[in-house]
Amino acid sequence: MSAAPRPDPRGFASDNHSGVHPEVLEAVARANVDHAGSYGEDAWTARFDELVREHFGPGAVGFPVFNGTAANVLAIDAATRPHEAVVCAAGAHIDVDECGAPERWAGVKLLDAEPEHGKIGPEALRAWEPRRGDPHHNQPRLVSVAEATEVGTVYKAAELGALADAAHGMDMLLHVDGARLANAAAALDVPLGALATGVGADVISLGATKNGGLVGDAVVFLEPGLAREFEYRRKQGMQLASKMRFLSAQLVALFGPGELWRANAANANAMAARLAAGVRDLDGLEVVHPVEANGVFARLPRPAIDRLLTELPGEHPFYFWDEPAGLIRWMCSWDTTESDVDALIAAAAAALA
Amino acid sequence: MSAAPRPDPRGFASDNHSGVHPEVLEAVARANVDHAGSYGEDAWTARFDELVREHFGPGAVGFPVFNGTAANVLAIDAATRPHEAVVCAAGAHIDVDECGAPERWAGVKLLDAEPEHGKIGPEALRAWEPRRGDPHHNQPRLVSVAEATEVGTVYKAAELGALADAAHGMDMLLHVDGARLANAAAALDVPLGALATGVGADVISLGATKNGGLVGDAVVFLEPGLAREFEYRRKQGMQLASKMRFLSAQLVALFGPGELWRANAANANAMAARLAAGVRDLDGLEVVHPVEANGVFARLPRPAIDRLLTELPGEHPFYFWDEPAGLIRWMCSWDTTESDVDALIAAAAAALA
Amino acid sequence: MSAAPRPDPRGFASDNHSGVHPEVLEAVARANVDHAGSYGEDAWTARFDELVREHFGPGAVGFPVFNGTAANVLAIDAATRPHEAVVCAAGAHIDVDECGAPERWAGVKLLDAEPEHGKIGPEALRAWEPRRGDPHHNQPRLVSVAEATEVGTVYKAAELGALADAAHGMDMLLHVDGARLANAAAALDVPLGALATGVGADVISLGATKNGGLVGDAVVFLEPGLAREFEYRRKQGMQLASKMRFLSAQLVALFGPGELWRANAANANAMAARLAAGVRDLDGLEVVHPVEANGVFARLPRPAIDRLLTELPGEHPFYFWDEPAGLIRWMCSWDTTESDVDALIAAAAAALA
Amino acid sequence: MSAAPRPDPRGFASDNHSGVHPEVLEAVARANVDHAGSYGEDAWTARFDELVREHFGPGAVGFPVFNGTAANVLAIDAATRPHEAVVCAAGAHIDVDECGAPERWAGVKLLDAEPEHGKIGPEALRAWEPRRGDPHHNQPRLVSVAEATEVGTVYKAAELGALADAAHGMDMLLHVDGARLANAAAALDVPLGALATGVGADVISLGATKNGGLVGDAVVFLEPGLAREFEYRRKQGMQLASKMRFLSAQLVALFGPGELWRANAANANAMAARLAAGVRDLDGLEVVHPVEANGVFARLPRPAIDRLLTELPGEHPFYFWDEPAGLIRWMCSWDTTESDVDALIAAAAAALA
Repeated sequence: MSAAPRPDPRGFASDNHSGVHPEVLEAVARANVDHAGSYGEDAWTARFDELVREHFGPGAVGFPVFNGTAANVLAIDAATRPHEAVVCAAGAHIDVDECGAPERWAGVKLLDAEPEHGKIGPEALRAWEPRRGDPHHNQPRLVSVAEATEVGTVYKAAELGALADAAHGMDMLLHVDGARLANAAAALDVPLGALATGVGADVISLGATKNGGLVGDAVVFLEPGLAREFEYRRKQGMQLASKMRFLSAQLVALFGPGELWRANAANANAMAARLAAGVRDLDGLEVVHPVEANGVFARLPRPAIDRLLTELPGEHPFYFWDEPAGLIRWMCSWDTTESDVDALIAAAAAALA
Repeated sequence: MSAAPRPDPRGFASDNHSGVHPEVLEAVARANVDHAGSYGEDAWTARFDELVREHFGPGAVGFPVFNGTAANVLAIDAATRPHEAVVCAAGAHIDVDECGAPERWAGVKLLDAEPEHGKIGPEALRAWEPRRGDPHHNQPRLVSVAEATEVGTVYKAAELGALADAAHGMDMLLHVDGARLANAAAALDVPLGALATGVGADVISLGATKNGGLVGDAVVFLEPGLAREFEYRRKQGMQLASKMRFLSAQLVALFGPGELWRANAANANAMAARLAAGVRDLDGLEVVHPVEANGVFARLPRPAIDRLLTELPGEHPFYFWDEPAGLIRWMCSWDTTESDVDALIAAAAAALA
Repeated sequence: MSAAPRPDPRGFASDNHSGVHPEVLEAVARANVDHAGSYGEDAWTARFDELVREHFGPGAVGFPVFNGTAANVLAIDAATRPHEAVVCAAGAHIDVDECGAPERWAGVKLLDAEPEHGKIGPEALRAWEPRRGDPHHNQPRLVSVAEATEVGTVYKAAELGALADAAHGMDMLLHVDGARLANAAAALDVPLGALATGVGADVISLGATKNGGLVGDAVVFLEPGLAREFEYRRKQGMQLASKMRFLSAQLVALFGPGELWRANAANANAMAARLAAGVRDLDGLEVVHPVEANGVFARLPRPAIDRLLTELPGEHPFYFWDEPAGLIRWMCSWDTTESDVDALIAAAAAALA
Repeated sequence: MSAAPRPDPRGFASDNHSGVHPEVLEAVARANVDHAGSYGEDAWTARFDELVREHFGPGAVGFPVFNGTAANVLAIDAATRPHEAVVCAAGAHIDVDECGAPERWAGVKLLDAEPEHGKIGPEALRAWEPRRGDPHHNQPRLVSVAEATEVGTVYKAAELGALADAAHGMDMLLHVDGARLANAAAALDVPLGALATGVGADVISLGATKNGGLVGDAVVFLEPGLAREFEYRRKQGMQLASKMRFLSAQLVALFGPGELWRANAANANAMAARLAAGVRDLDGLEVVHPVEANGVFARLPRPAIDRLLTELPGEHPFYFWDEPAGLIRWMCSWDTTESDVDALIAAAAAALA
């Protein structure tokens, strides 16, 4: 390789195509001095522990892991036994995008509920109650919802609270897949904890990578009893970082008092709103879900999609969401700029003309 | 947290207490521009692929994962079926330090062989042949050895070759846990491939974290048929990094033409040799294993150990290896200096006096 | 217990409420002489092996297991790798009545297809092809259908053949859950093999328990390569009977030249047909699925159901299939008599009057 | 197959080469009337439940399963979490003869302790305490011992009690693999419960198959909290018999007031004692373990073994226990007769002459 690897220009393919926020990278560099205890026995991880309590209350316990798949799967593993089931929205990331990791690792079954704009309600839990107590059937123990959802919508705190209440009433628990919890909290202009502890959730996946991180997310238990065995299960789950200080330093940079998490997420959200506003009235284009976080889902004619894919710079300027249905997804990131958005709007207008 | 987290001074607790080599961190920073395809669809991962072929031959295929546990467990998972068994040294990392991850993930059983100075030979495989074909018994399919070993010794290429030959003769495969492969290759002054492809190994765990990395190791298949399903299994194994460019950039920095891997490992090895030479003749201290890589294992009287632990700076200047036996472990790192070593030698002499 | 346990009268709750056909019990008793090799090293198991080849062709290999759950799960385990998926009908027994055993044991994901009268077609397989090759998604490898289905319908041989062809065209395999294969073959008046080898299936679960057996079913591999490791996997799956002669003796009695399997299944089918004919025209009752095997699924008003449950003898004269929908299931068995059926018809008429 | 399958003559290969005791088979036949609830909703299973309480106390709960592998594995699964470990004797059946079923199903690791004549003591548990609390290491949660042991010895009640006490003192539980519990209780002339509830065990595998049964053993929880989820786990473990009345009828016949279990086991034990007495003084033969239950383990010269194998009737008159060591095993059964034993003694004397 004589030349340096070439990155893509900024695009709308995914919020994980973006890089690391400079403050996060600086935090990693600052943590790179001398030696530190491994496996979490370090000062950055201790600081992250403090921040978890500040955000989520004195009983909350957080554990850095390497990625969102692991956060979700290990949260499910901690909250269930293998004869139990997890209720989730059909199309949820845990159901269709983890290559079956929840089933293989935790042994559980996932029970799909048909969502509306990516969201499910308490009736999704009640549907399975007739088989409660039947040994032939996995017993529902956990409901898992993504906040923000995979289609760019956001549960209001009251909606999450209703799910938690319903779950607890059936001896079930609530897991919030917060790969984009920052985007949801920014959208609703509430603290992070308002969508977790505040609604009665039991465990959350706390996303960082998509929001300006380098590598690393976290599992946060709001019901501390669930965390009792988690140190062992994280290790067994191949998710115990030896030089954990470098994961924790990122989390500290993002979730510390400066609220970098909110600034990053708010920018991504604002860019998605700008994009939706700019394309919503284009002839032939339909925005199919409310734009509440950092993604815009649109239907447009296939020739227009093809033109747009050709004309925009980069190899993957955006992805299909459902190719046969002519649905595409545009994701905005912490680093998306207004001019990026305006260029896309203009290109879309041209492609549809 | 008003003050910044405080690291420990450099010590001898573990090579994973050390930080990131500056060149590795710079490579990460250089990769942090604009966008890049996620999940390995990026130029840094493509460059790592090239380097894998350069080191290990045209048929080799490498896959970044997050840590050494995952590299080992996913390598085992790829090379076995759950009714099979893995033969390893009693005390091997995969056997006693992964919290049972190989068993839980791959379903296999680990069969211990008694090692000599951490090393096993072909007779360890033959011991299980009487139950070949017996459906009541897990069928040995893989032998896994650490190079360098957990006790600081190094298999010579011919020793690994004899294991590979014996394994292949029994329809078995050879896995090399190369968390410290760099240290072994530096110690033997051979290319990395000489301890992998060159000896007929089928799959290796390629360590980077302990040798100046930030986060990330790799699984490298030398027998490419084993890699056929690995993209799925890595995802299902919760080890597919979304911003993989930042893992690959580290691997490229370490394993590129500059041979940073060798420089880092050679320093750690040299410091261990200096340490061993300096303490070997102290009265009351016994170096219990040949010092061939970056670790020194020593037996000394408990009061001397306690004095030493108190007098050395830092919270964990070193660890017990086997407390009841009075055995301690001193690990040297890529950043260990001669003066660090000389200070330890002096402190040990004083503690034993 | 001074008195002997009291059985229920014959009813329509399930074909597994029936007992053992006298010829099967006699075969067990005849096998109870002196000693015999354990774990299948006996003459009855050898005889069953012969019968498997007679029914299913010279390449077929059969393995007794304890029950239908195990036959299905171990068949799936043999035909898949854990990152793969099994396509099945929504509501299939493997999906809703095994307490998640396929997921836990084999690690796979089950992908539901919406059936028509319990049956699915090749389009169910094509639905998943867009994610073929995507490491985020379990890769479809097996389609599993029940013959007869859980709702009493029967795939014609050509329908199974079309599924097998479609599957093989996508590098997939076909599993037939034949818990009631005897009923299907009797209904279609074809040999057993015509619904297995004859249609290109790769592996079947061969039911015996519901059709006059005591305990024990079998996995039969038509594609012998799939059987290569099965002796180990059956043992690891806790399904290797030590006194296997007593399982095999039952299978020999049922599947031997006397075709007891066909006689038993034909009786059950005929009784279901008689029952359907007798109730079909009752006012207020609707038979909701074609009655092609040994079950009748009917919708009738809840008060009528309640009256019928009260008036019929025994604790569980029949079960709800879908209580909220007012659907009930009447199952006929090898031992159901015409007078049993006529009594039920009369009671249903009275309850509906 | 024109002729009926031929059994072997009675021999000493294994207690599972024997057949079904006539009273057990009659009980099965008597249970074969009309219909009965499936999956344990029958009068025979209810009667077995009563017997469990009679033998093991009012809190005991029993669950029929198909075989001893399942009883052991499901007991382990119920008593552990996958990051935990099971301490057992090296060479224990669960460690070397279940094809890794405990590891694959329950995810746990087995930790071997070196036994004396098949038995381990409390020190075996203490050996692992230094790694208590270390997330890199499976945490010991269960100790599992076979009573009688795999080498024909018997733990005295006080020995089991000491193990239970030690286990409970370390927050561990005691599992007794009672595949041959009947032989142990008969040998010690105590009730079954004296080796279970009486010693403080938490869960046992209750063997029936080897002691005159046809198919079926049971898991019995003495600590009822462990049983809470077991109905689901048994189903998920593929061990829920649909026509359970036929398993329970056997258990009722064996463990009912007539104490058939004791008569059968006592005969097997007495025959082993007679055998040991008859061969013990033969020149060149050494009985290597105390003969306390129904097995005799002997070392004799290889030519004598070969002569004996040739001269005794049947294909497998007995098996090697450890072929390289010249160790053989002679197992006595419920149906072994004095003349069978005397013929073996005479043949052994001749072979050694």
